[in-house]
Amino acid sequence: MRVLLIGASGTIGSKVYERLEKQHEVIRAGRSGADVTVDITDEESIRAMYEQVGKIDAVINASGRAGFAPLEELTPEKNELGLMSKLKGQINLVLLGIPYVKDHGSFTLTTGVMMDDPIPQGASAAMANGAVRSFVKASAIEMPRGIRINAVSPTVLEESYEKLGSFFKGFQPVAGEKVALAYSKSAEGMQTGQNYEVYE
Amino acid sequence: MRVLLIGASGTIGSKVYERLEKQHEVIRAGRSGADVTVDITDEESIRAMYEQVGKIDAVINASGRAGFAPLEELTPEKNELGLMSKLKGQINLVLLGIPYVKDHGSFTLTTGVMMDDPIPQGASAAMANGAVRSFVKASAIEMPRGIRINAVSPTVLEESYEKLGSFFKGFQPVAGEKVALAYSKSAEGMQTGQNYEVYE
Repeated sequence: MRVLLIGASGTIGSKVYERLEKQHEVIRAGRSGADVTVDITDEESIRAMYEQVGKIDAVINASGRAGFAPLEELTPEKNELGLMSKLKGQINLVLLGIPYVKDHGSFTLTTGVMMDDPIPQGASAAMANGAVRSFVKASAIEMPRGIRINAVSPTVLEESYEKLGSFFKGFQPVAGEKVALAYSKSAEGMQTGQNYEVYE
Repeated sequence: MRVLLIGASGTIGSKVYERLEKQHEVIRAGRSGADVTVDITDEESIRAMYEQVGKIDAVINASGRAGFAPLEELTPEKNELGLMSKLKGQINLVLLGIPYVKDHGSFTLTTGVMMDDPIPQGASAAMANGAVRSFVKASAIEMPRGIRINAVSPTVLEESYEKLGSFFKGFQPVAGEKVALAYSKSAEGMQTGQNYEVYE
């Protein structure tokens, strides 16, 4: 398969790359230092990425940011990063990417545990995750040419626990390798409309 | 209770008004023809509404639009209505409204069945609904002063079935009065973080 992996240098993206690169041609995209530069908050940047990369079998997105703030400090302005990046950025990767995905190809997006198991300061990220999960489920029934779409919802990773653990008290971190398996199931399997929870 | 009902003249809003107005002071807000004029896609309009209305016990939103289009015709531009109205509009009603809601007051937002049971042309609305559901669940744990927050997720209403039924083939429409009960449970009860499904 020819795979476009956005966010390839991130904690999750690098594990997905390790898992897929032995058997597939994986084109790495990201904000810097990748095969292709892309800013998913910018529609024109997404269009340019697809033009440059051409036809692919699988689009995997492991990028997308959201702001973290206590609810009473979460202004509409601070909520904007999650709206523009993790939410709209991921949706636009799909809406603009369909013509570039080959028949029976796939999209895999990224959600996250805080939509199901809320954490402090996580309302904006939860909003973005919930939007993506429901978009995936609903768009799956209308995908043309047998194209599939799924999301992966990881909990906090072992690799991120030192930095993020204070937000995830009482959560069981999981190994990045385990999370990468869910991306493999989505891109290399045959299911569609799923949100793969990797919560333990 | 002093209740601010946004979208009061709509199919759902008018049923909620009928249910609550006998026992409570219900201030009706909407884009036109209401006690207070508001456009939820406009942050300044939301701020002005709260300034005009002052302290309330309950905010109930039964407004919010989203675009309907076949997935392959759903451009980022057509997705914008759902993003700005049903999604961001509802979130901003909460973020900007917290200071105006009295201790132990509540917010009630509106989602919808297509996030759980997808319909043709419903991906943008599903996205908005999923975002609101997850925001509600996550923000509930951080609400100050005992303020509660819930959402109501209606299926298609009997009152809308003639107009919308072609999108909801095989769905059992429910009476607006039944949907209004869920808003009552949210605003007049004591639960928080819930998404009340009124699917049959």
